Formats: sequence, structure tokens, C-alpha cells
Amino acid sequence: MLVSLLAMAPCAHAEDGYDLWLRYRLLPARWLATYRPVVTELVPGAHSPTLDIAQSELSRGLGGLLGTTPPIATQLTHDGGVIFGTPQSSPVIARLALDLPSVGTEGYVIRSLTVEGHPVTVIAATRDVGVLYGAFQFLRLLQTERPLEHLDIRSGPRVQRRILDHWDNLDRTVERGYAGESIWDWHKLPDYLDPRYVDYARACASVGINGMVPNNVNSSAFSLTTPYLYKLAALADVMRPYGLRVYLTARFSAPIEIGGLKTADPLDPQVRQWWQVKVEEIYGLIPDFGGFLIKANSEGQPGPQDYGRSHADGANLFADALKPHGGIVMWRAFVYSQQQPDDRAKQAYDEFVPLDGKFHDNVILQVKNGPLDFQPREPFHPLFGAMTRTPLMLEVQITKEYLGFATHLVYLGPLFEEVLRSDTQAGGKGSTVAKVVDGSLFQQPLTGMAGVANIGSDRNWSGSEFDQANWYVFGRLAWDPMRSSRDIAEEWTRMTFSNDPDFVTPVVGMMMGSRAAAVDYMTPLGLHHQMARDSHYGPGPWVSGGSRADWTSVYFNRADAGGIGFDRTGQGSNAVSQYAPPVAAEFDNLKRTPENLLLWFHHLPWDYKLASGRTLWDELVIHYTHGVQAVSDMRHTWAGLAGKIDAQRYREVSTFLGIQQKEAQWWRDASIAYFQTFSQRPLPAGYAPPEHGLKYYEGLCFPYAPGHAPLPESCSSTRQ
Amino acid sequence: MLVSLLAMAPCAHAEDGYDLWLRYRLLPARWLATYRPVVTELVPGAHSPTLDIAQSELSRGLGGLLGTTPPIATQLTHDGGVIFGTPQSSPVIARLALDLPSVGTEGYVIRSLTVEGHPVTVIAATRDVGVLYGAFQFLRLLQTERPLEHLDIRSGPRVQRRILDHWDNLDRTVERGYAGESIWDWHKLPDYLDPRYVDYARACASVGINGMVPNNVNSSAFSLTTPYLYKLAALADVMRPYGLRVYLTARFSAPIEIGGLKTADPLDPQVRQWWQVKVEEIYGLIPDFGGFLIKANSEGQPGPQDYGRSHADGANLFADALKPHGGIVMWRAFVYSQQQPDDRAKQAYDEFVPLDGKFHDNVILQVKNGPLDFQPREPFHPLFGAMTRTPLMLEVQITKEYLGFATHLVYLGPLFEEVLRSDTQAGGKGSTVAKVVDGSLFQQPLTGMAGVANIGSDRNWSGSEFDQANWYVFGRLAWDPMRSSRDIAEEWTRMTFSNDPDFVTPVVGMMMGSRAAAVDYMTPLGLHHQMARDSHYGPGPWVSGGSRADWTSVYFNRADAGGIGFDRTGQGSNAVSQYAPPVAAEFDNLKRTPENLLLWFHHLPWDYKLASGRTLWDELVIHYTHGVQAVSDMRHTWAGLAGKIDAQRYREVSTFLGIQQKEAQWWRDASIAYFQTFSQRPLPAGYAPPEHGLKYYEGLCFPYAPGHAPLPESCSSTRQ
Repeated sequence: MLVSLLAMAPCAHAEDGYDLWLRYRLLPARWLATYRPVVTELVPGAHSPTLDIAQSELSRGLGGLLGTTPPIATQLTHDGGVIFGTPQSSPVIARLALDLPSVGTEGYVIRSLTVEGHPVTVIAATRDVGVLYGAFQFLRLLQTERPLEHLDIRSGPRVQRRILDHWDNLDRTVERGYAGESIWDWHKLPDYLDPRYVDYARACASVGINGMVPNNVNSSAFSLTTPYLYKLAALADVMRPYGLRVYLTARFSAPIEIGGLKTADPLDPQVRQWWQVKVEEIYGLIPDFGGFLIKANSEGQPGPQDYGRSHADGANLFADALKPHGGIVMWRAFVYSQQQPDDRAKQAYDEFVPLDGKFHDNVILQVKNGPLDFQPREPFHPLFGAMTRTPLMLEVQITKEYLGFATHLVYLGPLFEEVLRSDTQAGGKGSTVAKVVDGSLFQQPLTGMAGVANIGSDRNWSGSEFDQANWYVFGRLAWDPMRSSRDIAEEWTRMTFSNDPDFVTPVVGMMMGSRAAAVDYMTPLGLHHQMARDSHYGPGPWVSGGSRADWTSVYFNRADAGGIGFDRTGQGSNAVSQYAPPVAAEFDNLKRTPENLLLWFHHLPWDYKLASGRTLWDELVIHYTHGVQAVSDMRHTWAGLAGKIDAQRYREVSTFLGIQQKEAQWWRDASIAYFQTFSQRPLPAGYAPPEHGLKYYEGLCFPYAPGHAPLPESCSSTRQ
Repeated sequence: MLVSLLAMAPCAHAEDGYDLWLRYRLLPARWLATYRPVVTELVPGAHSPTLDIAQSELSRGLGGLLGTTPPIATQLTHDGGVIFGTPQSSPVIARLALDLPSVGTEGYVIRSLTVEGHPVTVIAATRDVGVLYGAFQFLRLLQTERPLEHLDIRSGPRVQRRILDHWDNLDRTVERGYAGESIWDWHKLPDYLDPRYVDYARACASVGINGMVPNNVNSSAFSLTTPYLYKLAALADVMRPYGLRVYLTARFSAPIEIGGLKTADPLDPQVRQWWQVKVEEIYGLIPDFGGFLIKANSEGQPGPQDYGRSHADGANLFADALKPHGGIVMWRAFVYSQQQPDDRAKQAYDEFVPLDGKFHDNVILQVKNGPLDFQPREPFHPLFGAMTRTPLMLEVQITKEYLGFATHLVYLGPLFEEVLRSDTQAGGKGSTVAKVVDGSLFQQPLTGMAGVANIGSDRNWSGSEFDQANWYVFGRLAWDPMRSSRDIAEEWTRMTFSNDPDFVTPVVGMMMGSRAAAVDYMTPLGLHHQMARDSHYGPGPWVSGGSRADWTSVYFNRADAGGIGFDRTGQGSNAVSQYAPPVAAEFDNLKRTPENLLLWFHHLPWDYKLASGRTLWDELVIHYTHGVQAVSDMRHTWAGLAGKIDAQRYREVSTFLGIQQKEAQWWRDASIAYFQTFSQRPLPAGYAPPEHGLKYYEGLCFPYAPGHAPLPESCSSTRQ
């Protein structure tokens, strides 16, 4: 016995994060004693690819958590059986009155029942995928040390399409990716299926994600060529039994680039024919293909406006081709014209509100959480509530383009929660973004939520341990947009690290405060888009010039001797008018605008007095400083947790917190140094001046920062 | 006991190749019985970073192999102790007569002795790193199931600098890399040290590699800026205790690009001063910095000829700056001018032979194995033997740019062995390249061998299991250039997969035949450089045009109605004259030229009769076909090995062999289709025609093939 035990020792790899929240490590003895009698055998329904996966996940999970893998029984024979399946696959479940239709086609029921005289747990659903979701939920109960008695869980997703968007290029670079190269190895597909694809699908299914777009919205037409469709079909075959449908981005000009046509005009019959044939080809290979995600006429991408057509014309072109096959079009509302706008934040609304009602019924408009671009804080996007006859899906960014890349600990749950709970007041009070997204506000039958993935080939998937939580919380909120991000943080922490309350409580505290900290050290009080050009790595409030003003920081901060902030009131760009009247009135009114959005909506003098009685300038400095202090506090908290988890992950988090603190200080110091040239005011007493002069910060340059295409070494001459 | 055993189950990760040849899995019972009495305790010398590593590797290795970790003893107390250290660190070793100086500063002695009445094994060396090398060798004995009795092993490297060159860019793309992105995460350095760095250093040390160049020879001046030097220093700190020195490529024009100078002229005092200061800065951070690797005036890189200076002037500039610190310059001989040459294969010789004797003594010229560029087969480089007063190091390419990327099973040992054993006849018969490389032929005190690494972030490091063997064989041959590549293949197979002779014998057979197979299906009978443009992925014998003729296939194959092949005899480019007279006479003589180099040296009519009595055309077709058949045979062999190793690695190899067979067929068919347009001859009886017409093969285009910078979608219009 000794020998065989030790023989396994070399297999015991370090905890490197690969297992994500599906670690399934042995539970403490008291929980083993509690759980084992309740989980004595697995009683599956008939075989199907998805039910087999549910069974193998339960075996793997319970085997790990309980230290013994429950036997598979074809019939219930003991107390403590876990019966799982659908009414079609399981005769036992078929006989039970579980009201499965009420949880929908993807929902599940988990109940403690007595069946044939035995106390059992039933995991049941209308479709196989619901059983898989239920199996993961059941495992989660054990992973988070919850009671297994008297279970009566009924859960179904409130949002239909819960999708990860990968901004992954075909050469495996990842736009705004901070976790290594793309996990999709197109070159070796369709022959070679990296085992990682299965673990990706497992992780997605475990949080209820049911779709994925593997290629970048800045799309290559090549992904629509036949060889690439075969590659995609091979991926789809891996994803299918996990309930994941594949979608594809489509380059609007593909009929020209790979079709040999002279135009991509959406009203041209040849173009329409080309897309119809292409879509038929796709469905021939992938019968459950989800549809297209399209970025058109935005940031240089081709689109219908190139031919004098509207976004509706463009979207409907694809919708008509997809309709016979059940596919949908996710048309991105993140568009802005090549011309210099008076206020870039207004453009999506101006473009799309006039088109309300003109989209075919399998089009859903994909709207970013805020009107600009995934900033640390933005107000909710004014399109939410403004389009009553068009389905809108929410797009959030899981990858932290603007929130510190992989090395800053920033839990995005509170950001997502903030937007979902924002009240558009479009249908009176309580008309939250969540109610737009889940379709309840305007009775939309098509609903969705998309997250821009933070997944790459890094061993830990997301570039850092804590960034795994952002993948996790996206999935959980897409399933139920009204859940508390704190509850989800706790759940994730328990599954990923430890159930020890001395660990869970401080770590959840860190996570819940982390986004506010980042807002403070980067862009406090409603500032936005103040990062370095192109890479968005580090501060760049001085960024100006270049090809268009609305890609610069000075466009957004409007700092001058008179003050700082972007006037979007009726006296300014009047972006406030895009919101429902009660919301518009609030944002238009300096005194009623939430302080955390102050400079988003108002240009204010440096000496403007805030609620605290302090001047704007002083408050800015205090906020920046507070952000740095909050990171320092996180480091201190984490230092106190040494020994509570494995060494490798502990050390990685420690190192990254050290980087975060340095970079938070850099953000604070550079921002203060720059804005002080306008404010011409001293720092409040007791606040340290920036470590370096402004020239130093302006001179820093990082041409190889991750997440964007390599740049020429334009800044090299300033460096030694 | 049962519980704790099962608790480990979730840790038992699949065999994913990460452990390389250092797997240390439990040995069969009969070997345990044999080995355990001989390895009862570890008796280390005094602590040092390197000796601590040797100890931990022995503990880990023996613990895994034997199932019990031998205890550490401060003094010898039992029979079967393993004593390891240097005379300085171990009083026991200091008292033994081991003649350590005779194995050199990096060598080791492993001996079975009786010490203080106990039979023991001693692993001893002059320096700590020798002990580490010896520890790996000792483990290798167990891993390959060799006897541990009567050991009397004395081994020292025959080559001083055994270096991996990483063609890794600072943005983590890898030029000619097929194993994912660079493992060097420059962005997070110096703060974050990926645990993988340590495993890289372990693997290198285990095969005796003692240096690494982490950045591309097509270099960015940024790698010489202060922030990057701090990053490099952090890497060097990881590598140092494993006996690995870091080197750096240096961009010749750095004084302009990051130094603000107007020139990079190697004779300019300011330039010389700039490099001197830069080198001092480097040594301030990395006291054991190895030196520079430089590619200058080649393929567009800047260099001394930009200022009318010679390669010697350029190399000596760096040599003089490095000399006071003990650093060396590795100056690449892979140069060719921007002008169209009469024969590109002649250029390095023409450039460098006149400079023999002009390089300072810490310069070593780095010469590729053949005169062209890492082709499947080339004759040895004529510089070997031609420069008697200049140290030459051999550069081989471990990454398979021209040999099927990661998915073709091609063991490079026979290729490396072929060049090392080639006889330059420069000092009479037996003047092998190996004797040039190890310095013995011309009494060179500075020696080296460099391999272009095939390492990336892929979990299995090298992109495939079998490509790990190419990293392995490089290290082993650099240690001893006269070793048999077959022995090394067997050693590697045993360590990596299994000692089962029913597995080892057929797999070593596959490996040993694999390079010949690739030569046959790609470029038989001395053909060369026939691959697709830029990416080098797949066949492209028709490639012509573009910016320079000597980057095209037609330049090298010279196929026309009259025949095929590059005439390098006295009637042609006279490249043969660059070899020593007896070799030149052989290559100049059609009848004496080895058939496998025939078309390298001779342009021959299609009906030319070969030794077989068949025509050149028929032999070409037969060779191409034989190459495909050889891959098919490998698949068949591998299919018979199912169940002999773990499922995951077995499956990956199976899949890749399937890809290899498809691509071998593609190479054969495309090449035959193209050359047949000139030969206008039928295929020999029984040989199938190409599956498609020539137009089909010419139309194939893969803009996202790995290993080179992304290209514009120039070929997209031909594709659907």
C-alpha cells in the first residue's frame, strides 16, 4: 500500500490554477461524515453524450471531494442514491411530479425525495443539458460546504444566450488578451483537438455559459472559408455535448474578399445569395450553429454604410440568411463614424434609436455596458430603455483592458452588478438594465448577455488566479442577472481556494472593494479614458493628437486652467438627453449627479466644492491616493493569509499585488503630476507629491505591452 | 489509508508532456529490488544553491522512481549511501582520489566505492555544477534501468558553450516557433518569475546545456534598455544555480536607436564608448553575463558594412567591450548581402575566410550546419575546416522550420550526427566537423555549439512529444559530439515513455528513420529550399519572383525541360571549390557525389541514369513516394503500440502522424505535379499520379501558418 501511494507522488503537480473552480479536493472529515451517507451511489438515466458527461463529472467531483467515487447503479438500491436525468432518459424521474417545464428548457430541479422507500437526491431537467447544469450545481453545494438535506432547488436561466466572445485572431494573438495566446490552435484543427478544449467546455458549462464566439469581432474573412469552417465544426463537436453552441464573427466585406464579388452591398442580390449559400454551407457542417456576431462600420471595419445602407439593412441581410436554420445575428451597437463627433459617447444612440423596429426578429443588438468603452466606471448605456422594439443584449468586458490587465486584482462582479441594477426608468421606476436584458421590461423573446473572454493559453487560463473569478461571475450573472456579486465572490472563493472562513471573509472583502480601488487610482470621480495610447497600459492623461481626437485622453478630461470634466449637460454635448427624462434630469443637475460620475457629465472648476466640503482638486488627489492605499491594504490582508492555501498560487497573488501597488502609485503620481499643471494648486496637507516629474511619466513607453498588435519602436529614442 | 490515497486522485493529472524526460515514474518491482539497497540515503556536501538543487533533484527523482525518498544524512551511516559534492563541500570526497581535474570544470565522476567500510556511490566534481550534471546522469541510469554496481563513469563536456538560442521576440511571438508563444513573459518580469523558468533550467541542466539567449537574433534594441536588463537579470538569477549563463542578442544599430547617437560605426569612439558603458551596466546587474550573439548585415539587419567596415571590425567592437568582463561574442556567419549573388550558398565563405585571424580572441563565429539554411539535408558548411585561426561554433536548428513544424515526427539526431561526422579533410582524413567544433583540430581554446530552440508555452514545451527529443539530443551531442544519435534516441525514449523493449525498439526505429523520410517526401536527392514562401509551410517548388531570386524555389531547383538541380561544380557556381581539395574533387565529380546530395551540386537531365539504373525522374518519384510510405509505416508501427503508454500522449502522437501523412502526401503530389510540367514524362508504373492538378496546389495558401509574422491576406481572393 505504501508503495502504490508513493507511486502517485510524482503526479501531484503543484496547484497551478488549471483546475479553476473545479478543483474537487478532499473535504474536511466532518463534511465527509455528513455527505457520504447522502451520496452513496449514482443512478443515471439512459446514455447520451451529455448525460455521460454529467455522470463523469459527478464521479470525478464526488470522488475528489468525498475521497471515494460512488458506484454507478442501474437501479436505485440504497439510501443516498443520486438520481439524475430527464423524464425521457430516467424512468424514475418520469414518474416524479417535478414540474420541470417551469424551469425552462435549460433549467434544472434538485430535490431531496423519498423514492421507492429510499431517501434520495434527484437532479432532473427537461433536457440533458439541464441535468449537466444541475450536476454542477449539486457539486457546488459540496464544494462550498452547504447542507444536502431537504434540497428543493429550482433554477433556470433568465437570459437565453450566455456567450463568451473571444477577441482571438487566427494567428493566435488575442486583442486585449492578457493570458497568453489564444487557446484555439486553428493551424492544427480540425485534426488535433487540444484536451484543453474539453476543459474549457466543462468550465463554461459549470457556470451556465451556452455559447462561444471563437474569433475576433475585428474579423478575418478567412474564418469563413471552407477549411476554417471544417476547423470550426471540429470545435463545435467538442462543445456540443456541454451545451455550448458556436457562433462566428463575420466580416461584412467577405463577399468581396473571399467570394470574388465586386460589392458587399446588403441589398445586392448576388451578395444576399452569397451569404445564403455560405450560411447553408455552415449549417451543413454545424447543424446547431448559433449565428453571427458582427462589428460593422466601427473603427474602420466595413459595413452597410459603405453602400449608403443602414445598420438595419446590414443586420437583416444576415438575419434573412440565418432565419431558415434558426440562427441569430448579434449586431454590435459599438459603432462610431470616422468623422469627428461632438461627443463619441452619443453615437450609438444616435445611430440606432431611429432604427428601432426595423430589425428582423432574429437580430439582437449587442450593447456595451456604458456608452464609451468598458471604462472602470461609466453610466449605463442610454440605449438600454431607449429601444423598445429591438432585443438588446448586454456586452461586458471580462478581459481587463482598462482595469489593470492580468496583474491587478480587480473583481468585476460589482461593475457588472452596478450596470444590471441601474434604473433606466424607461418604463417607470424599477426599469433596470437587468429587466431589459432578461427581456421582461419590453417582453422581448430573444435575450442575451455577452462577455469578452479573458481566456488564453496561460496555465491558469485567465492570466491570474483572481481573474478566473471574472469568468465565473460573468457566467453566474448571465444565468441570473439579479444575483449578488458578493454571494458569487464567496462561492468562487470557496470553490477555488478554501472554505476556511478566516480566508473566505477577508478575500471576499478584498474582491468586493477592488473595483472601487481601481476606479480611484485610475479615473476617480467620473474621469474616463485616461490611459496610454494604443496599449492602454498605464496612465496617459496627456495623450493628444493622433488620427482622431476622440481616441485621446484630453478629449475626455478637458482639463484646463478653468477646471476638468466633460460637459454632457444641456449646456454641453447634451448626452444626458439620451436618457429617460427622470434620469436625464438627474445627470443634468450638478447637485443630483452621483459623485462617482461627476466629471463624466460636468466640467467643473478646480475649486468646486464637493459634498465633503473639500475642493474638486483636493478630492481628486484624495481619491487617487485612496486607491493606492486600498491596494496596499489588500497586500497587507493577503500577507496575513500565508499558509492558508498552497504556496504556488499564494506566491503568484502576492507578486501580482506588488505589481498592482507599483502601478497604482504610477497611475496616481502621473495623473496628479499632469493635472497639477492646470490646477496650479498644492496637494492637500499630508499627501505626498508624485515621485517623479511629469516629463518622466510622459517619457515612459512600453511598445511590447500585451494585448495589442506590436507597434513600431516609435518611442525608443527617449529610452536607455 | 484508503482515504488519503484516494484524496490524491484529483492531483493525478494526465500525462501532458510537461515533465519531459524527467518523469521519474515508479520503476517495475524487479528494479526496485535491485536499486533500493544501493540507494539508501543521500549524503550531500555543504549547502550551496547548486548543491541544494542537486539534492532536491535526487530526492524528487529517486522518490519517484523508487517509491520512497531516501533520507538525507549528514554523515555516511549505511551501506548504499549516495555521496555527492565537491572536494570543497564534502570532506569525504576531499579524501578520495578521483582525479577530478581530468574531467574538467564541468565534468563529473560517478563511482561505486567502499567508504568507511560501506559500499557507496560517489557523485563528485570540481565545481557544484558538475555535481548537478552527475546527479542527472545518476538518475538517468535508474530511469533507463541500467545497473548501479561497479560504476566508474567519468564524463566532461567536449564543447564549452552549449547554448540554446531562442528566436523569441519581446512581444512573445517566436520566429519559426511551433510550440506556442515565448515562455519569456517580459511584461511581468522582473517581478513575476513563472515557475516554468525553473523547469526550463532543470531540463537544460539535465542534458548539460549551459547557456541561453532568450531573444531573437533579429533583435530589438529595446532588449538593451535598462528596464529590460533588469528583467534579464531576474531571469539570470533563476538560471545561475542550474549552470546556465544568459547571453543577449545585440542590435548593431542600438547606439542610434536607444543611445541617441548619429552613427553605429564600429570604429567611432562614441559608439565604442557607448557599448563599453552598456556592457558595464549589464555586468553590474549580471556578473556572469555570457556575452552577445549578433546577426549583422544579414537579411536586412544593420551591421558594420553599413559603415564600410568589415565583420571583424563589427565583432571586435563588442569583443573589446566584453573582454574585461570575460564575455564573448558569437558572431553569426549566416550573412548574405542585399545584392543578388551568383550562388547564395557561397556567401558566408566568401565573406569570412578573408577575415580569418582578424577576430579578437573572445570572438567565436557561429556557423550553420550547412551553407544554406537548415534544410532537411545539406552538405556540411564549407567554413568548417576553412578557417584555422578563428574559433567556429556549430549552429543547428532544433525548431523544425523546414522539417514539418511540430506535427511531423522527425528526429534530428541523425541530421546533427551527419554534419558532426562529416569529414572536412582540412587537416587530412578524419578532420571531422566535430573536431572543428570541439576545438581539437585547430587547437581552439574557445568552443561552442548552439541550437535554435523549439521551446514555447505549449504544455509539452516543444509542440509535440517527439520534438522534445530534439531538444534532448542537441544537449547530449553538445556535451559529446561523437555520441551516437541512436543511443541518445533510446535513452530519451526510455526516460520519456517506457523501458518496455516492445515499445523502445520500434520507437527508436521510427525515430532513426524519420529524418530520411522527411528528406524523401520534401526534398530528395539533394533538392533544397522548395517550401512555400515566407511561412515555409508545405511545398512550393513553383515559388518565384518577389524581392530577391535567392528566396525562391526555382532559384534552387533550376528545373527546366533540360533537367533539374543546381550546378555548383567548376562548370557552375564553383561552390565546390570552397571545400578542401579532396572533398571538392568528390563533389565536383558527378560519379563520386553522394546520391543524397546529387542535385545540390549538379544540374542533370531528367533521363540521367542513377546507380539503380533508373532515370533521375523515376528516382525522384520513387523517393517522394517512399517518403510518404515511410510515414505510413510509422503510423502502422505506432498503431501497434496502443496501450503501452498513457492515453493522452499516445493519442497526440497518433493524431500528429495522421497530419504528417496527409502533409507528406501533399509534398509528394505537389512536387511531382510541378516537376512533371518540365520532365514531361510519365510516372513509373504503379506510382499513383498526384491527387490534384498543379493549379490546386499552387492555389493553397495559409496566411496564419505559425512561426512567422502575420501576412496580409494577399491570397484570400482565390479561396472560398
